[in-house]
Amino acid sequence: MTWKCAVVNIPLGGGKGGVICDPKDMTQAELERLSRGYMQAIGRYIGPEIDVPAPDVYTNPQIMAWMADEFSKIRGYYAPGVITGKPIAIGGSEGRGDATARGARYTIREAAKHLGLKLENATVAVQGFGNAGSNAARLMAEDGCKIVGISDVGGAFHSESGIDVAKAIEYVAENGTLAGFDTVSDCEELTPAEKVLELDVDILIPAALEGQITEKNVHNIKARMVAECANGPTTPAADKVLTEKGIFVIPDFLCNAGGVTVSYFEQVQGNMNFYWPAEEVDERLGHIMKKAFWAVLETAEKYNVNNRTGAYVVAVGRVAEAMKLRGWV
Amino acid sequence: MTWKCAVVNIPLGGGKGGVICDPKDMTQAELERLSRGYMQAIGRYIGPEIDVPAPDVYTNPQIMAWMADEFSKIRGYYAPGVITGKPIAIGGSEGRGDATARGARYTIREAAKHLGLKLENATVAVQGFGNAGSNAARLMAEDGCKIVGISDVGGAFHSESGIDVAKAIEYVAENGTLAGFDTVSDCEELTPAEKVLELDVDILIPAALEGQITEKNVHNIKARMVAECANGPTTPAADKVLTEKGIFVIPDFLCNAGGVTVSYFEQVQGNMNFYWPAEEVDERLGHIMKKAFWAVLETAEKYNVNNRTGAYVVAVGRVAEAMKLRGWV
Amino acid sequence: MTWKCAVVNIPLGGGKGGVICDPKDMTQAELERLSRGYMQAIGRYIGPEIDVPAPDVYTNPQIMAWMADEFSKIRGYYAPGVITGKPIAIGGSEGRGDATARGARYTIREAAKHLGLKLENATVAVQGFGNAGSNAARLMAEDGCKIVGISDVGGAFHSESGIDVAKAIEYVAENGTLAGFDTVSDCEELTPAEKVLELDVDILIPAALEGQITEKNVHNIKARMVAECANGPTTPAADKVLTEKGIFVIPDFLCNAGGVTVSYFEQVQGNMNFYWPAEEVDERLGHIMKKAFWAVLETAEKYNVNNRTGAYVVAVGRVAEAMKLRGWV
Amino acid sequence: MTWKCAVVNIPLGGGKGGVICDPKDMTQAELERLSRGYMQAIGRYIGPEIDVPAPDVYTNPQIMAWMADEFSKIRGYYAPGVITGKPIAIGGSEGRGDATARGARYTIREAAKHLGLKLENATVAVQGFGNAGSNAARLMAEDGCKIVGISDVGGAFHSESGIDVAKAIEYVAENGTLAGFDTVSDCEELTPAEKVLELDVDILIPAALEGQITEKNVHNIKARMVAECANGPTTPAADKVLTEKGIFVIPDFLCNAGGVTVSYFEQVQGNMNFYWPAEEVDERLGHIMKKAFWAVLETAEKYNVNNRTGAYVVAVGRVAEAMKLRGWV
Amino acid sequence: MTWKCAVVNIPLGGGKGGVICDPKDMTQAELERLSRGYMQAIGRYIGPEIDVPAPDVYTNPQIMAWMADEFSKIRGYYAPGVITGKPIAIGGSEGRGDATARGARYTIREAAKHLGLKLENATVAVQGFGNAGSNAARLMAEDGCKIVGISDVGGAFHSESGIDVAKAIEYVAENGTLAGFDTVSDCEELTPAEKVLELDVDILIPAALEGQITEKNVHNIKARMVAECANGPTTPAADKVLTEKGIFVIPDFLCNAGGVTVSYFEQVQGNMNFYWPAEEVDERLGHIMKKAFWAVLETAEKYNVNNRTGAYVVAVGRVAEAMKLRGWV
Amino acid sequence: MTWKCAVVNIPLGGGKGGVICDPKDMTQAELERLSRGYMQAIGRYIGPEIDVPAPDVYTNPQIMAWMADEFSKIRGYYAPGVITGKPIAIGGSEGRGDATARGARYTIREAAKHLGLKLENATVAVQGFGNAGSNAARLMAEDGCKIVGISDVGGAFHSESGIDVAKAIEYVAENGTLAGFDTVSDCEELTPAEKVLELDVDILIPAALEGQITEKNVHNIKARMVAECANGPTTPAADKVLTEKGIFVIPDFLCNAGGVTVSYFEQVQGNMNFYWPAEEVDERLGHIMKKAFWAVLETAEKYNVNNRTGAYVVAVGRVAEAMKLRGWV
Repeated sequence: MTWKCAVVNIPLGGGKGGVICDPKDMTQAELERLSRGYMQAIGRYIGPEIDVPAPDVYTNPQIMAWMADEFSKIRGYYAPGVITGKPIAIGGSEGRGDATARGARYTIREAAKHLGLKLENATVAVQGFGNAGSNAARLMAEDGCKIVGISDVGGAFHSESGIDVAKAIEYVAENGTLAGFDTVSDCEELTPAEKVLELDVDILIPAALEGQITEKNVHNIKARMVAECANGPTTPAADKVLTEKGIFVIPDFLCNAGGVTVSYFEQVQGNMNFYWPAEEVDERLGHIMKKAFWAVLETAEKYNVNNRTGAYVVAVGRVAEAMKLRGWV
Repeated sequence: MTWKCAVVNIPLGGGKGGVICDPKDMTQAELERLSRGYMQAIGRYIGPEIDVPAPDVYTNPQIMAWMADEFSKIRGYYAPGVITGKPIAIGGSEGRGDATARGARYTIREAAKHLGLKLENATVAVQGFGNAGSNAARLMAEDGCKIVGISDVGGAFHSESGIDVAKAIEYVAENGTLAGFDTVSDCEELTPAEKVLELDVDILIPAALEGQITEKNVHNIKARMVAECANGPTTPAADKVLTEKGIFVIPDFLCNAGGVTVSYFEQVQGNMNFYWPAEEVDERLGHIMKKAFWAVLETAEKYNVNNRTGAYVVAVGRVAEAMKLRGWV
Repeated sequence: MTWKCAVVNIPLGGGKGGVICDPKDMTQAELERLSRGYMQAIGRYIGPEIDVPAPDVYTNPQIMAWMADEFSKIRGYYAPGVITGKPIAIGGSEGRGDATARGARYTIREAAKHLGLKLENATVAVQGFGNAGSNAARLMAEDGCKIVGISDVGGAFHSESGIDVAKAIEYVAENGTLAGFDTVSDCEELTPAEKVLELDVDILIPAALEGQITEKNVHNIKARMVAECANGPTTPAADKVLTEKGIFVIPDFLCNAGGVTVSYFEQVQGNMNFYWPAEEVDERLGHIMKKAFWAVLETAEKYNVNNRTGAYVVAVGRVAEAMKLRGWV
Repeated sequence: MTWKCAVVNIPLGGGKGGVICDPKDMTQAELERLSRGYMQAIGRYIGPEIDVPAPDVYTNPQIMAWMADEFSKIRGYYAPGVITGKPIAIGGSEGRGDATARGARYTIREAAKHLGLKLENATVAVQGFGNAGSNAARLMAEDGCKIVGISDVGGAFHSESGIDVAKAIEYVAENGTLAGFDTVSDCEELTPAEKVLELDVDILIPAALEGQITEKNVHNIKARMVAECANGPTTPAADKVLTEKGIFVIPDFLCNAGGVTVSYFEQVQGNMNFYWPAEEVDERLGHIMKKAFWAVLETAEKYNVNNRTGAYVVAVGRVAEAMKLRGWV
Repeated sequence: MTWKCAVVNIPLGGGKGGVICDPKDMTQAELERLSRGYMQAIGRYIGPEIDVPAPDVYTNPQIMAWMADEFSKIRGYYAPGVITGKPIAIGGSEGRGDATARGARYTIREAAKHLGLKLENATVAVQGFGNAGSNAARLMAEDGCKIVGISDVGGAFHSESGIDVAKAIEYVAENGTLAGFDTVSDCEELTPAEKVLELDVDILIPAALEGQITEKNVHNIKARMVAECANGPTTPAADKVLTEKGIFVIPDFLCNAGGVTVSYFEQVQGNMNFYWPAEEVDERLGHIMKKAFWAVLETAEKYNVNNRTGAYVVAVGRVAEAMKLRGWV
Repeated sequence: MTWKCAVVNIPLGGGKGGVICDPKDMTQAELERLSRGYMQAIGRYIGPEIDVPAPDVYTNPQIMAWMADEFSKIRGYYAPGVITGKPIAIGGSEGRGDATARGARYTIREAAKHLGLKLENATVAVQGFGNAGSNAARLMAEDGCKIVGISDVGGAFHSESGIDVAKAIEYVAENGTLAGFDTVSDCEELTPAEKVLELDVDILIPAALEGQITEKNVHNIKARMVAECANGPTTPAADKVLTEKGIFVIPDFLCNAGGVTVSYFEQVQGNMNFYWPAEEVDERLGHIMKKAFWAVLETAEKYNVNNRTGAYVVAVGRVAEAMKLRGWV
């Protein structure tokens, strides 16, 4: 998280904490007591001006809401800036739902400019159709791209003429996964599903799990650009090959930093007690993502390294500079 | 106030407090001591991050200034966000003077769009010519409307070709009321003054007292749209008739919420120690009023109720949702 | 500082503090200890919501960084709004580098409008080529002006066809001063250097030391407008003559208030934990400078005084009004 | 409470708050939630250094414990000084159990000295055998008195040779009331029970309810001294007669102030995080009660009024003096 | 003050502040506003746990009361420990009235033990009959001494058989000074009044102004012991002679430290919200004064210096040790 | 620590923290930086009203002083109650030096009363001659005991007529250990040194290391009473035998609780800013130790268990009761 925040230059840090439990075995009342108890325990050590937790696996907006409420007992007033991922109704941010995908889109747009790639009718394959993947597909389609391949645990589907993304989203909402999507839409199933990565597309968006592009399949990747919406979709060995092949990679901690950026916006808005319209959130997100993209690209070119290394140079350099200025090193 | 804030979706609540006294019998020095004493008494229980008083009858900007100053003794620094209605020179907001009228204009504009009514040359009658009424008349005239009727305690005046609003404002500034305005301007007096409500106009703006549109005169209302700038200008019984007659009503706690919205902006600006230009205040007000208008209209249509009921559904629903999320119910 | 802040209407005050020492005789470690010790001593009495120090002679961004860091030990969290002039990497503001020159440019633009002077090809002479002077020359050149004279301790240089400002900036970066600039660029040296003030230009920008325009040389000033980027470049006696000659003066504490204004922005941004893009900083600076310029001009015209007196009337009047409203006088 | 605290000169004030409910209809879990909720509601406005609640009817040590625990969530540390009446195990005071009776004993001892009455073999009647009455009987017996009459709702019992107080206490612990005590101990029942007030004793201790000594029975009172352990046992009319008869009265808010005094000690000890041995509590209680007794007596003699009036003069005078010194009046 | 506190080993420091004004020219209302304004100005920088002002010339208990009350507005609760010298009714300490004299008595008692001087019938002369002098005379008389000489601005009086101190105190209360005391009491006037210093007594107590024992009269001093109740009664040159003559001197900042010690007790008691009986105050004062006396004497003997030097060695040594331990030097 | 505090009923808890380093390899400057850095890190989470660290191995009073000083930077005032083990000069407690031994003496005195053992001429053996052991020997000698055996790493020494404890202490101060003590004093060396445990004495005081009384030597123990000054001197198996043999054991966490008790006094005194004379410290220590001794003994007798088990019953019971009352279980 420290490097992700640093690469997009937002004043948040890293750090993680959690509770060992299985929320699936707990009642709502137990979850509420646990959430409130956790905040009672950490509430003196965090705060809107100190450290600000964000959601992670097995938390949801309701859990963040309970924690925000419990924190208010400690402070004596409602301090929504203490935690992010809250429902909009009690201080969440507009635009948080598809923030990761929106952030990715901004980096893809800049990369396309850099590569001289027109997005109109550019072909796109998306692996993973959860929040990040489905929104990325939808947003790229809005930008005029043709989404020729999508996949999730229910299977991978391909259509040269472009998949109807809205229909796919609706289908998943009803059926849970994409399985059987070819029965209702004009497309064909790819087997094994991993073949979605190997489609001959302009833009490949891995938005599923870690370790999908590996030494085994990297030689079959035909995309001109890989926009890593997922965390760690490319293994280090495969990454080296991508670089050698000259494929333009937008590394994960740059590409998917839109989520944490809007979390940061949520903190800022909560602290101001003032909330931005969705358009302002998106515009500010765009400003940050674009600036980060070019900082990374210029650094990579300056040091003649790939984008991932360039992004680390930017991120580590910023943290180091701040530490040095504050006199810590 | 709770519902008014909720319908425009600003994070303030309700609650009232006051002092039993007659400020007209008090010297300035007594008023100052009273204002400071009141703040000493409540100052530990309110604050820029807790509860923020706003002005009401018999307070004025100077009184709010004394209270803000006294609060600073408790906090040890100047905290203008603790109270609203302050003079601009010490942290008041630009655009607070005609905020109610500006807010009303935004809802009228959206309502006109909805009704397919062009504001250019649309006819308007305004009852009441105080802060809300005179500014509403002025602003609607700026939007191209023809103000064919105005009134205040000095009488009602009518002109088919449109009243010169600037002249009327100047006249009232000099003479206290509109009485005799027909002697200096091309218009005729209406008697009784209540006839201003019954003019055959596109837009009727009651901006005076409560209970003006009643069972007695509601059947004579000819306006296509009633924009309630006043608080409670329509009796419940008359409201039912307006609905039956198909007259489009912008209910008071939506229509006149511009005032509290800019109070809220004043708190936000004071907390940031940063003040927006008048244009930014107006633009942000517009964003909020428009969004609120459409939320109310869509809700009214969804549940097939009139706008007033729709506004309550929106407001109560928002408070209920927030309470539920925070675990209070 | 009180009047400078008041004339641009920003909510900061005056007040100075310092340490008697010679930083040139101190090691970095000594400077760090001194800076931290100073903050330990004053840190309980200042703060982001109370009083906010800004840099002055012999401080630099690193010193401000140490102080901000030390303050964080007292508060228990990083509070960048406590101090301004910090490096951007730890909470400084975009646009602070050339803020004084940018602020001056905004007042020059408005003055030009007022005088009916087209900036395109207008001739400009700039005395002083440090931060304020060189940036002012660069920015005015960007606006289309012809910079016909510049000077610093290394000498004054003149070119009727316009000096290449970018080249001059580069030259000073390499050589320390302008001395010898005529050997690399198409221009001639003026001796004595003070003659740069007497060039026949539309706009004269004194951006060096105090007391440059005096009773001795004021009669030779031919500029139509004098924009005082420096502090106190004109003696009171010379000022009187400028007024008599009808030369339009933008008085120093208005003309060079861009620096403190962006310092103020730095505090606001630090308190929000949100940082504006450079464009937003510049736009907000423009809004403030323009509004201040016209307030001064209108006041000068209303009371039939020169701009300097007009600026004092505005500034003192604002402070007096605020004090009266808060019940202090 | 204000006068009671003032007459014994302890720095606490008056003020009451409560919850409308019937604790007898509530489960322990409901009582805990109610107690914690009450503290969440008032916890920002009270505190060990501000206002300190003490127990009253229908509260018990467990309830005070819950409240103290809940307050610790607000403060972030255990602050036992916020509330009194806590169990000793979590910060209650030694000697609180029989504090009222101990306080009364100290005043009786001083009164006896004043009257030249030897406590050894002095006869005592006690009305009421709850906490105050039974402990008063026990303590006076320890001082050598002969307890010739006791009573409670179960009846009144009389023995010229002295009742075995320890046995009576044990009997009530087992049987709930004194009813039938004459069957196990050498004494006779008095009917009606009120006759206990009319026994020919040196010291009468009303320790039951209000309004026991009335116009009807005051003429039958034969005691030399009446020590009012109960609140308001004497009606105003009867009080006048007692004065006329020359009976020495220790008025209730002096006589029974031992309870609030040890509550005060509990606050002091909790704030110090240091707890006094029972002997120190008793000694400090004695010091306070003795000093209060003589202040009242001397005032009564100085102004030639009865003790009750003297006590009011002392108490009101102290509050008035403090208010005057602080500049409130 | 730093050395005085250090020599008696109480955890207070030095430091002074004041207001330039003439309280004799001010009304009570002006004094109150001044006192409150002063506290508003310094109230953020002092406090019961930081720095605690004590009274000095031209302050009185009422002034300290106003300041304590004003401080309570800042803190939000009554914090009597912030200031000392308050009236007992609002948190002053018992025993503060004659604390200086009581402290002096304790040192005289120890010195007498050291010198083998019996206080019973020891002869004493006291210069000055204000608070310190008259109380010292009274207390030494209580210890069995014969007060053979007293003086104030009204004159000096001598009686070999001992002056009736109670009568003298009463006389001054009625007449302002001792002038004429020989007309009502069996004693003779000494002229000039300074002769009181030269009486042949066991103990001489200068309790008036600075610089009374000088090079001129030191050779006439016949006392065995000089107990300096006043500040600086002995000039450095005279001090040297006293040492040479072998007269035992209790130096001022030890001898008169009883006042600041009870000020310190007042702070401690206010912070505890618990007040000690007069006996406990006196006992604790005695403990401190005795311990200080012997520390000084042992140090003087150890280093073979006079008591004054010994006292400085003790005081400076304690401050130095604390600074070293805290890492300041 | 939790059980030790609970058995003596002082309101402190357990919990440990530390730094992994070897202070013997560090300079004073490094130790100071480490100590201050540690406090900067934990200083927000502890405090005089929250958690209060005490010294442990490899800390010393200077280290505690640095930490107290650093804490004062965070709080803004000197708060000595935050940490214990400080030098007396900056807020340490009188009587801390031999607190463990004094506490042990109080328990031995009560145990002797219980056993009918006269301390006058009772024989005592002490294993260990560090702080606890040497002071215990000295104090028991003061009580009239005959110290017939002492030991440390330098050897064990025995004298039927009693060892000169003062001389032994002086010897160790000069020579580091007792080795060779028999050459200067009338006593004989015991070999192996462990034989000191097996002397035929009334009272055996193990004051050295853990695990000294084991299954191997327990059968040789002849003492009537074992007072465990060390932590864990008896193995569980040996403990069982001691119980079987009817030897009266004062278990370690009761016997040596004097140290933590005076640490607690140090916190209390620092918070009050008032320091008790050594006599008051000792008297309050005595009160606490005696009360704890009898609570343990009565519990052991009530449940017919040995003293160690009785002490656990007391300690665990107190913690459990407090947790239950506060609603945690």
